[in-house]
Amino acid sequence: MKLLIINGPNLNLLGTREPKIYGSRTFESYLVELREMLDGDEIEYLQSNHEGDIIDFLHNTDADGVILNAGAYTHTSLAIADAIAGIQTPVIEVHISNTASREAIRHKSLIAPVCCGTITGFGLNSYFLAAQAFVMGHVK
Amino acid sequence: MKLLIINGPNLNLLGTREPKIYGSRTFESYLVELREMLDGDEIEYLQSNHEGDIIDFLHNTDADGVILNAGAYTHTSLAIADAIAGIQTPVIEVHISNTASREAIRHKSLIAPVCCGTITGFGLNSYFLAAQAFVMGHVK
Amino acid sequence: MKLLIINGPNLNLLGTREPKIYGSRTFESYLVELREMLDGDEIEYLQSNHEGDIIDFLHNTDADGVILNAGAYTHTSLAIADAIAGIQTPVIEVHISNTASREAIRHKSLIAPVCCGTITGFGLNSYFLAAQAFVMGHVK
Amino acid sequence: MKLLIINGPNLNLLGTREPKIYGSRTFESYLVELREMLDGDEIEYLQSNHEGDIIDFLHNTDADGVILNAGAYTHTSLAIADAIAGIQTPVIEVHISNTASREAIRHKSLIAPVCCGTITGFGLNSYFLAAQAFVMGHVK
Amino acid sequence: MKLLIINGPNLNLLGTREPKIYGSRTFESYLVELREMLDGDEIEYLQSNHEGDIIDFLHNTDADGVILNAGAYTHTSLAIADAIAGIQTPVIEVHISNTASREAIRHKSLIAPVCCGTITGFGLNSYFLAAQAFVMGHVK
Amino acid sequence: MKLLIINGPNLNLLGTREPKIYGSRTFESYLVELREMLDGDEIEYLQSNHEGDIIDFLHNTDADGVILNAGAYTHTSLAIADAIAGIQTPVIEVHISNTASREAIRHKSLIAPVCCGTITGFGLNSYFLAAQAFVMGHVK
Amino acid sequence: MKLLIINGPNLNLLGTREPKIYGSRTFESYLVELREMLDGDEIEYLQSNHEGDIIDFLHNTDADGVILNAGAYTHTSLAIADAIAGIQTPVIEVHISNTASREAIRHKSLIAPVCCGTITGFGLNSYFLAAQAFVMGHVK
Amino acid sequence: MKLLIINGPNLNLLGTREPKIYGSRTFESYLVELREMLDGDEIEYLQSNHEGDIIDFLHNTDADGVILNAGAYTHTSLAIADAIAGIQTPVIEVHISNTASREAIRHKSLIAPVCCGTITGFGLNSYFLAAQAFVMGHVK
Amino acid sequence: MKLLIINGPNLNLLGTREPKIYGSRTFESYLVELREMLDGDEIEYLQSNHEGDIIDFLHNTDADGVILNAGAYTHTSLAIADAIAGIQTPVIEVHISNTASREAIRHKSLIAPVCCGTITGFGLNSYFLAAQAFVMGHVK
Amino acid sequence: MKLLIINGPNLNLLGTREPKIYGSRTFESYLVELREMLDGDEIEYLQSNHEGDIIDFLHNTDADGVILNAGAYTHTSLAIADAIAGIQTPVIEVHISNTASREAIRHKSLIAPVCCGTITGFGLNSYFLAAQAFVMGHVK
Amino acid sequence: MKLLIINGPNLNLLGTREPKIYGSRTFESYLVELREMLDGDEIEYLQSNHEGDIIDFLHNTDADGVILNAGAYTHTSLAIADAIAGIQTPVIEVHISNTASREAIRHKSLIAPVCCGTITGFGLNSYFLAAQAFVMGHVK
Amino acid sequence: MKLLIINGPNLNLLGTREPKIYGSRTFESYLVELREMLDGDEIEYLQSNHEGDIIDFLHNTDADGVILNAGAYTHTSLAIADAIAGIQTPVIEVHISNTASREAIRHKSLIAPVCCGTITGFGLNSYFLAAQAFVMGHVK
Repeated sequence: MKLLIINGPNLNLLGTREPKIYGSRTFESYLVELREMLDGDEIEYLQSNHEGDIIDFLHNTDADGVILNAGAYTHTSLAIADAIAGIQTPVIEVHISNTASREAIRHKSLIAPVCCGTITGFGLNSYFLAAQAFVMGHVK
Repeated sequence: MKLLIINGPNLNLLGTREPKIYGSRTFESYLVELREMLDGDEIEYLQSNHEGDIIDFLHNTDADGVILNAGAYTHTSLAIADAIAGIQTPVIEVHISNTASREAIRHKSLIAPVCCGTITGFGLNSYFLAAQAFVMGHVK
Repeated sequence: MKLLIINGPNLNLLGTREPKIYGSRTFESYLVELREMLDGDEIEYLQSNHEGDIIDFLHNTDADGVILNAGAYTHTSLAIADAIAGIQTPVIEVHISNTASREAIRHKSLIAPVCCGTITGFGLNSYFLAAQAFVMGHVK
Repeated sequence: MKLLIINGPNLNLLGTREPKIYGSRTFESYLVELREMLDGDEIEYLQSNHEGDIIDFLHNTDADGVILNAGAYTHTSLAIADAIAGIQTPVIEVHISNTASREAIRHKSLIAPVCCGTITGFGLNSYFLAAQAFVMGHVK
Repeated sequence: MKLLIINGPNLNLLGTREPKIYGSRTFESYLVELREMLDGDEIEYLQSNHEGDIIDFLHNTDADGVILNAGAYTHTSLAIADAIAGIQTPVIEVHISNTASREAIRHKSLIAPVCCGTITGFGLNSYFLAAQAFVMGHVK
Repeated sequence: MKLLIINGPNLNLLGTREPKIYGSRTFESYLVELREMLDGDEIEYLQSNHEGDIIDFLHNTDADGVILNAGAYTHTSLAIADAIAGIQTPVIEVHISNTASREAIRHKSLIAPVCCGTITGFGLNSYFLAAQAFVMGHVK
Repeated sequence: MKLLIINGPNLNLLGTREPKIYGSRTFESYLVELREMLDGDEIEYLQSNHEGDIIDFLHNTDADGVILNAGAYTHTSLAIADAIAGIQTPVIEVHISNTASREAIRHKSLIAPVCCGTITGFGLNSYFLAAQAFVMGHVK
Repeated sequence: MKLLIINGPNLNLLGTREPKIYGSRTFESYLVELREMLDGDEIEYLQSNHEGDIIDFLHNTDADGVILNAGAYTHTSLAIADAIAGIQTPVIEVHISNTASREAIRHKSLIAPVCCGTITGFGLNSYFLAAQAFVMGHVK
Repeated sequence: MKLLIINGPNLNLLGTREPKIYGSRTFESYLVELREMLDGDEIEYLQSNHEGDIIDFLHNTDADGVILNAGAYTHTSLAIADAIAGIQTPVIEVHISNTASREAIRHKSLIAPVCCGTITGFGLNSYFLAAQAFVMGHVK
Repeated sequence: MKLLIINGPNLNLLGTREPKIYGSRTFESYLVELREMLDGDEIEYLQSNHEGDIIDFLHNTDADGVILNAGAYTHTSLAIADAIAGIQTPVIEVHISNTASREAIRHKSLIAPVCCGTITGFGLNSYFLAAQAFVMGHVK
Repeated sequence: MKLLIINGPNLNLLGTREPKIYGSRTFESYLVELREMLDGDEIEYLQSNHEGDIIDFLHNTDADGVILNAGAYTHTSLAIADAIAGIQTPVIEVHISNTASREAIRHKSLIAPVCCGTITGFGLNSYFLAAQAFVMGHVK
Repeated sequence: MKLLIINGPNLNLLGTREPKIYGSRTFESYLVELREMLDGDEIEYLQSNHEGDIIDFLHNTDADGVILNAGAYTHTSLAIADAIAGIQTPVIEVHISNTASREAIRHKSLIAPVCCGTITGFGLNSYFLAAQAFVMGHVK
């Protein structure tokens, strides 16, 4: 199975950015571990701070499933939501922090209605759980 | 590890209630499969249509973690949120359907801010993913 | 035909509670009259101040139709609405007073969208009209 | 007893307009049946697409009671509400469809607070139930 | 000077309608007195319950000034506001009751922004004060 | 092809009303030019300041398409929207001015959701573009 | 008859402040003319930029009626409204400009509900009309 | 004098639940002290996590006054408010913490309008002050 | 112990102002009784209709505690809230009437979040209860 | 005449994306037909999923008019609106679907107020109508 | 050049009030330094806790520019905004703290729209930057 | 000291874009002057119409401080706010125009809460004042 992880704006700063909220581990370091845990499945990884890039990534992917942490664009980008609705590939929304316990502007996800499911608040492990949902065929 | 699954109002109807949204399998049938998948870990199961019962279940549990599908109380019960905040046991919020794509009243969870994390939209497999989060130590 | 009347919170006080709004007759006294008027049809009567009880009543009924005055839960209980949507038995919503002319919080019914119809403002006679709707086959 | 039925805008289309919502029977056809059911009571019938006509009908009636389906004016006409409040004749509000399960703009009735009661969602039978409320003296 | 008084919906009921709010005198009776007080100035009087009539009255007038009590249309008719903005004749808005102390829906006037001024709460004398504003040249 | 143009309230004033917004040409003058441009197609023209008339026009038309400028009723008339939804004839909504750059109350059209399409801001040419949409078969 | 005119904040600047909105005449100059027009009636005049002073003026007056232009406090001072409600002297609210055609914050008057009536938009003549309402006994 | 203290959801956890907000003393321990302070007056104590139980407690009490800390139900239960309005016994609302300085959802009390008075923010001493209000006859 | 009572706008009218809401006793009369009841503790009393005076009173006090009835400023004065937050002296908010059962604008207190506690609805006895809270050391 | 068509996010998917809403024809295919219909006029075509690209396209164009379908950016991009306001070239807003009948977030266009006009709901023909508006000189 | 600094409510407490937000330096101490930095320019300093005083200060000043920290009145005083609009002297709004990162009620400034500019969040140095804007002629 | 100025969307048009609001001078021309005034300090300048570019600029800068005019992204980009919060470099928000006196959508800045301070309304001089705040060490 081939999975694509897309990280949105500021997630390239993981490990240095607001460590109280996001932890102090880089995503690249976690990715090594994640690939080991999912032995036999392929994981492609893309990150961009550009809304348009994320739309392009979604249009162009040949993966069997997408794990998307759209960062702040989760709450402001109807265009990414349209991109998810416009492709056949299933997409799972993940978040590192518990967005429901943060500022009000982070309580509403524009992309959640068009994703298969959402996994929020498990730190970097949110990605593993999403990958497992795909691998074990849990995605509708 | 000992886990407690709490199902809230109307989830006793699973398998017969609005099968287009919730599927046609009973929770008891799923529970057999879930226990097999989590071989070695204990799973207790409680269901009630009473808000107060759910609060009592949370107060009295000796489990290591709680998987809570509060059903409609998710959106109306500040008292259950207070119960979660008032105990030491970590709680994961799960939903069978993708609540973000349903009516507006189901977009806001009163309990999400005090849960460790949320898993939404994977059908009955949402429970498995939550159990795995506990078993693999993914809960902060 | 078998009908179930369910009265919600505080309706056990009928006859003594705020008589200017609700009148001074007990529901039991009215029930005698109602049964006479509907000669040949069976009327079961249940009342509870517990939201969960009302859900249980709805799940367990074998009646051909339910007449539900959910009292204050009309405006706060999404769980009762889910129970109505989750069963096959048709439900008619009734109110004794004209809720539209009272406080703003009583203007919105959470259960109306999943009921067959609503009869409001005819005093205790609202129950008779609802019963007649069932008996005469007016319910879709 | 003399009753006046007033139908508001677009109800002259009954039978051809959006039959999934309003059914495929004309009001005139139903009126024949209704008059038979209420043998001995007189029923006058008026319809107009003009808000001002409905106000005039209300001012000029000599009926003992009015059954009013104000159609879309239910939600936009404070002037009709004022007309109801300004006359002595009691008015019952009826709707064919369950307005609570339709678009948000149909959830608020401007005229309900000044009507005696409301009967909603029983198809054309809503008119019969209202008539019966008058005939049996159920109107306060 | 020629003045036109336009009364909107339900003001034909003055004297019988809700006398606690509007008083028990007919407008025709008041009109006799008003014409006496404004000796030498001509007063034309028109009333309709139809929004469209009021627009037509405004379009067709040859008066030097209009005194408009639009009744409930004050709060719902953008079309009357457009008619006022579309003619050259100055218009003064009057109300018999103090609309600011009534229900919230009566607090916002759609026509006030395009009128020269507003006189509210002086009973039938509101018309006299408006007439005097015109006669004494107080209107900008 | 037979088209019906319906103009709503205050559009009879075109040419004299607020010329900075609506221009200084009468609609009748434009209609001559429009009929020439659409040589071979029939154009019927109706105007009224009465909401009910516009509903009647819609109910009674035998045209192949309707071009509707509902003026201020665009923003306040659910009844006209219901009339459009209740007939088979396709309706295109047009506006002379760019309503989106005017007051907030003109930003929301109640009739747009039930029209085929909307053409706004091209002055009187909005009518020509709508006619062309019908003539060239662009309407779905 | 003795009348008290109270002018609120910034009205001491009349004649120099924003003359496009308020005109270029000082209030003192107007007062001379007003006293002449109301020959035989006494007019006391007080002005303050302090909310508390206006409350004190209202508490201490022995006038038969108060004409109050509360300026910006109209829209922010519940305390002045309470002062009006707390005294026996009738109060008329006046405004020089048409507040309904200005910014949204000026559309809501906190004091209107407790005044006898309101006169708005007639320039300085608003004071004369209010005085006349008192003198001619138009105040309820 | 006989007083009834009713504690709502999660207040059974007092002493262990969120001690930064609610303190570390159990209610039972405080009750001993309270009874001593109110020597000669009887204090009954009931607690439940069930909304329906609180309604039942209110219906069935024979106390001279009720001190009610409805916990989270303060903000979500219209049914408890109706129960208070429906009985003759006076009810004082108390809170341990200063709810006005917590989350927005805790700023609005549904039960305050039907209680005699409210005492908020004095820790467990809020109960003593409420008891004293009853004992000294301060309750209207 | 030295306590300062500060009364805000219009409370100087107590005894004559709206006696149905506030009672018919002057505050000075109550003060005599209150001082007797609190024998041994000093009570200073200040009243002003000026928001700025209340801020000055708070800044300049040497009392051990302040009992503040800010009247209408409760709902409009962020500046008084800042004054309370800016001093060390603890402040208790009191109200004579049950503000929660009055108009909506009185439901929100801007000063409650920075006061120690709030006592509402006990008539003049609210002051006594507040004083007692200070004297018995109930203030955190 | 030279026209520039700019298509925003996800419109590169036309023909495959949500064909029920957007149809099954690619834009490139339509462009061939459109150029034929507008024989003699030049049409440049640009598409991007990047908000910044659309701004750059607008800044750099030498066309006589722009036809802009900003897709989801219509509803979220104040920056594109500023770009339109900042250039001299006239811009017409087009949409393929009837956005007024879709989700609420698509009802408000941030760019409409600064465009010359809007054409919505005619499928791909919306582009032709816009082009014609330019070619025939209909744009103000 | 002559500048007037006006400080609003509670700013007399600077140095002792909430030092975490406002710092621990008195304004008088800062003023000495500021005057040295602006050698050759005159700085007048006024402070009051009274809204009316601030209006009076603005009306009466003969300064070339005003630096205004209106404290809490920034968010509640339309009257001060009117005073600024009513005088010729340019006014710069300053704040010590970053009001945008504090409570929601502090996010909206009523006076900002009528000031020349706003400088927020630089501690006491906000005053220096404002003075410099005046001295260097940066104010439009 | 090294400062980075970042200009957001449409600011490349300065000098030609809406000169009534933004003036007629190019930023490049101003930059020459600014560098002269800040002799000895280095100023880097970057501009982009792409939200993602601005995030990248913030991530990659080695400046001692950033002066950011995010243009329209100020009001729509949570992602830029996250970028500011995620880096160590202090950022000052500047605006050329007085955004508080423009359309409502420009009144709320999403980035202000995470900036050190804000300088608004001084034309191009806003940049100089911000630079000076950095150079003189005024930034906390």
